[in-house]
Amino acid sequence: MIELTIQIPNETIKVKVQQGENLLHAIRTAGVNIDAPCNGNGTCGKCRVKLMDGSVKHKNNFKNKESGTVLACSCTVVEPATICVPKESLLDVNNIRVQKNTDDYEERFYRLREKFASRYNVESHVQKIELHLEEPTLDDNISDVTRIKKHLRLELGCSRVEINTHLLQRIPVLLRESNFKVAVVYTWLDEDKIRVIDIKPQGQATGYGVAVDVGTTSVAACLVDLDTNQILGEAACANAQSKYGADVINRIIYAIKGDGLKELKEAVVKESINPLIMELCKANGIKSDEIIIFTASANTTMTQLLLGVYPDFLRKEPYIPALTDTRDLDISAADIGLCINNNALIHLSPAVASYVGGDISAGVLPAMIQESDKLSILIDLGTNGEIVLGNSDFLMTCACSAGPAFEGGEISCGMRAAPGAIEAVTIGEDYQARLNIIGAEKPYGICGSGIIDLISELKRVGLIDARGKFKKDIATKYVKFDQYGIGQYIVAEKEQYGLDEDIYITEVDIDNFIRAKAAVYSATYVLLSSVGMDFEDLDEVKVAGGIGNHINIKNAINIGLFPDINPEKYTFIGNSSLIGSYLSLTNKKAQDYIDETAEQMTYIELSVYPGYMDEFISASFIPHTNLQRFPNHNKMDGVAKDVKSAV
Amino acid sequence: MIELTIQIPNETIKVKVQQGENLLHAIRTAGVNIDAPCNGNGTCGKCRVKLMDGSVKHKNNFKNKESGTVLACSCTVVEPATICVPKESLLDVNNIRVQKNTDDYEERFYRLREKFASRYNVESHVQKIELHLEEPTLDDNISDVTRIKKHLRLELGCSRVEINTHLLQRIPVLLRESNFKVAVVYTWLDEDKIRVIDIKPQGQATGYGVAVDVGTTSVAACLVDLDTNQILGEAACANAQSKYGADVINRIIYAIKGDGLKELKEAVVKESINPLIMELCKANGIKSDEIIIFTASANTTMTQLLLGVYPDFLRKEPYIPALTDTRDLDISAADIGLCINNNALIHLSPAVASYVGGDISAGVLPAMIQESDKLSILIDLGTNGEIVLGNSDFLMTCACSAGPAFEGGEISCGMRAAPGAIEAVTIGEDYQARLNIIGAEKPYGICGSGIIDLISELKRVGLIDARGKFKKDIATKYVKFDQYGIGQYIVAEKEQYGLDEDIYITEVDIDNFIRAKAAVYSATYVLLSSVGMDFEDLDEVKVAGGIGNHINIKNAINIGLFPDINPEKYTFIGNSSLIGSYLSLTNKKAQDYIDETAEQMTYIELSVYPGYMDEFISASFIPHTNLQRFPNHNKMDGVAKDVKSAV
Repeated sequence: MIELTIQIPNETIKVKVQQGENLLHAIRTAGVNIDAPCNGNGTCGKCRVKLMDGSVKHKNNFKNKESGTVLACSCTVVEPATICVPKESLLDVNNIRVQKNTDDYEERFYRLREKFASRYNVESHVQKIELHLEEPTLDDNISDVTRIKKHLRLELGCSRVEINTHLLQRIPVLLRESNFKVAVVYTWLDEDKIRVIDIKPQGQATGYGVAVDVGTTSVAACLVDLDTNQILGEAACANAQSKYGADVINRIIYAIKGDGLKELKEAVVKESINPLIMELCKANGIKSDEIIIFTASANTTMTQLLLGVYPDFLRKEPYIPALTDTRDLDISAADIGLCINNNALIHLSPAVASYVGGDISAGVLPAMIQESDKLSILIDLGTNGEIVLGNSDFLMTCACSAGPAFEGGEISCGMRAAPGAIEAVTIGEDYQARLNIIGAEKPYGICGSGIIDLISELKRVGLIDARGKFKKDIATKYVKFDQYGIGQYIVAEKEQYGLDEDIYITEVDIDNFIRAKAAVYSATYVLLSSVGMDFEDLDEVKVAGGIGNHINIKNAINIGLFPDINPEKYTFIGNSSLIGSYLSLTNKKAQDYIDETAEQMTYIELSVYPGYMDEFISASFIPHTNLQRFPNHNKMDGVAKDVKSAV
Repeated sequence: MIELTIQIPNETIKVKVQQGENLLHAIRTAGVNIDAPCNGNGTCGKCRVKLMDGSVKHKNNFKNKESGTVLACSCTVVEPATICVPKESLLDVNNIRVQKNTDDYEERFYRLREKFASRYNVESHVQKIELHLEEPTLDDNISDVTRIKKHLRLELGCSRVEINTHLLQRIPVLLRESNFKVAVVYTWLDEDKIRVIDIKPQGQATGYGVAVDVGTTSVAACLVDLDTNQILGEAACANAQSKYGADVINRIIYAIKGDGLKELKEAVVKESINPLIMELCKANGIKSDEIIIFTASANTTMTQLLLGVYPDFLRKEPYIPALTDTRDLDISAADIGLCINNNALIHLSPAVASYVGGDISAGVLPAMIQESDKLSILIDLGTNGEIVLGNSDFLMTCACSAGPAFEGGEISCGMRAAPGAIEAVTIGEDYQARLNIIGAEKPYGICGSGIIDLISELKRVGLIDARGKFKKDIATKYVKFDQYGIGQYIVAEKEQYGLDEDIYITEVDIDNFIRAKAAVYSATYVLLSSVGMDFEDLDEVKVAGGIGNHINIKNAINIGLFPDINPEKYTFIGNSSLIGSYLSLTNKKAQDYIDETAEQMTYIELSVYPGYMDEFISASFIPHTNLQRFPNHNKMDGVAKDVKSAV
């Protein structure tokens, strides 16, 4: 056995591994959440580590001799060595920050909830009733449960009361400790039957709910007070499955080997969702056992992985999901492995098809497409790009594989839209970037909206061409080329911001992003074409996703991500999947609405749609091979006016 | 640490224990299921072990110097020692024998099932339907679950289909492996909704059910083929909780300390019920996962312990159970810890009160008391003696604490009515006992029916007096007195039967049995008195319990267990709780019948009933202090004619 010393920020771990062990595997086995979206194929370049002492054996070329940086996945252990895993190579699942931003909640969540409720009625999933039970005597010696049921029947008019084992176990002591004065938290199962979710002493809160968006790359959650429907906190982190593959196809391939399915299920539950829940609870001083509703919206693959359902048929023609409709599924917190009340109501948003999931059926609700006669389109910029077209008469949907680039994945200095992310960029005449950073002085990486700006600006100032390649004839210290001639642009110099390393974007990154935007643009085009429509027919475009809150629509048009129509028609609605989860958690009718939405949507399978591939290739330029599609490209004034403050 | 060598039949175990450790605890910690119904109080004399080498420190007097026998509970470890635990001191949970006795099933189970079905209709809990699903295509790409639901809705007319996570996980692969030709096993939840229990390739059996009687002392189970409702095997063993206390009161006291509740739950589930299920499955070559229904009838304490519900309020005035009605309880196999299909239907028979449990409400069904105008009484001879009086107009019930004597508990050579048990005895003029042994040549112990005969015969031939004490003036080699003057009678001499030890009965055993029979007799008397009736008003007496299949009614009257009325009025119906479980497993209507029975019964709480204690004391003689209550005592002819064959 060989001793490896692994340095991570604030910690040093020593492990013994076999001679010849893969270094990526060795680091993971030590419990370090190292990122590797390609899962060790040597293609994503994310698992960079620094060799501090000793040596390792390389499988391929990648090694930065100067800095000692190697790709962990391409190395095997041959002798004792000290390896430093920089924070850039770590998944950020260990670094969850709960945000409490009441003003923002008002705009993003509450206004929609009220709008929906005023139209469809507010109907909570859970209700609470206080019971003053008589204390039993020798003459009144009915059982504890019978006593509770008797009162519930009398006061609620229900004839049947369902109670589960876990609750039953607590009842005898609870009743006596609270002098038979208790509050029963329940839900209506049908017009005649309720299910008791919790019984507690009087005067306590009804309980809490957690609404979640489980994305391929990121997981976002918010904690809801069920008495007020107010959000007590919001948090996001990487989907810890990312280490096993960046997109759903790689995850599926991993899932079907050995214990892969179990590992993926546990990764997202134990390393992403549960930590988010724990942090949200901690920040609000509540116990996770008080969480009695959980609603999640996820794409179809994520939903199957969350439930531990074999996903291989999702990626094989004819692309069949195990489930779409999620009504009447009997799912417990324990089935998923959630660290919440084991009697909690669990609801997963329904899918439409293999590549249009619950994130979209839930996401259509905040987009409110069906509420109007106007023709609207919803574009959800996720790892899976999903598009919904429709109005009060019809709903059509399709999906495309965009990859994790919109959320900063597979981008050298990419990150989610979280504090420290560069969310907006302008480039001056001196080719220096001016940055807008989310909630911090120092930049840490670039999120999706920042990358859109960056590519648009690089193109506008002429540093890159339509293929996204750096022009070699412009002399500026911000553009560098490596030994293979691959160009990169320094977005933030380490000296200026006091960083360990520069923040930069490479041609490879730009190429990844171009493929992502081409997938979305061409899917949007094909979806419209399939019903004989054109971009100009659109009245409204709703943009959703974890790309960042300040997406610059004009720049997004400039790079050819969005169609070149009047920018006034665009609205950015944020993480619509999370908002949909929240609405479905706080309003039973919203859940029905989402279920019905999923049923109403007509799904177009792009992979078999003639012409899609040609469209995609044509769109793989900045902005497009056919410039007539982008008449206003780079002609729009006030390019950078959305950047609110530059450093 | 001190090394102990523990010898059990066919195995020697070495353990290291602390100086001063209690020997009973040390033996249990070694995984040996040593019996100790008084749970270490030094009162039951069951945990006898033989000191083979070394020494132990004694707390009290009991030590047989000649044989080296000590009570493990009263010893502490002081030095390395070798301890032999004889099979008599072991719980018989490790020695389960599956019985397949088709003729017997006909009489005990099937006739009743048919009788019930002809009156109330047969309605199975589970049904099976074969589905020929179309294989999905790009044009017909609905999800697997949607496809199944569509067919079920069409063919069954239900609008809602409930499916749980465990099943969902299996669906994608199962559908494809069986070429989309599957059989769905389901149950109706209401007129519009079904729950899918299992999905399997076509051509397989629907599944199996297990019906159980969970008694305080013994657990009995039968395995049922759901396609034919035939019993595939029956088995019984000790309730492994017995080591923590012989009766429900001692169990409750154990449960409320430390991890007691968990230990008791696990003892009965992991060491009694699950081993019974595994043996029944093994004997029939089926997987325990194929068991999709489980019905259990148990007294109220056993039900609460099975569910892990805090039981202390059962024994404290006003004696309140946590639950009686078991409808709408949401219990899974996992909640209990059962080794069966995790989607199985679980039903526990409802209780009436703290000391009249599901064993009685289920047991009334085979007794069919409500089906006739005749006044009947059901006497269930369990550790808890339970009595039901009634006819088609009313049902009354009460319970008394009999202790485990009827099932051979707290009797030196007592055992359950299983192969090797002496089930009938006559004593000749030479004072030698003639024995009837269940299914074996050699006797192993005495079961309840044998003890009744034995006491009746000992009294008839004049070896004991009305208090159950041996008369010292009769000289026979079969009666011996120990150093304290306590008499015992040799039932089977070791030389005659080739045994390691004699089989005998002591004055202490007889005293235990007298208390048991006095409890039942006086309870029966008081129940009748409470409605102004007398024994002579009874038209029928149904006797139930695990006492043995060949109870000699006349002898039972002779010893004062049963009232002295016409023996023709008596019928022995066997383990009515198990039969009730079986009926409720095979017929939904039977389950409703049991639920309604529990609601209809009026419970009399004897412990607060004036005069019960006086009645009990008067009945603590053979047959009674008031001989006018037993005019025919020892005058009945053919005392021993029920003994079919004597060895």
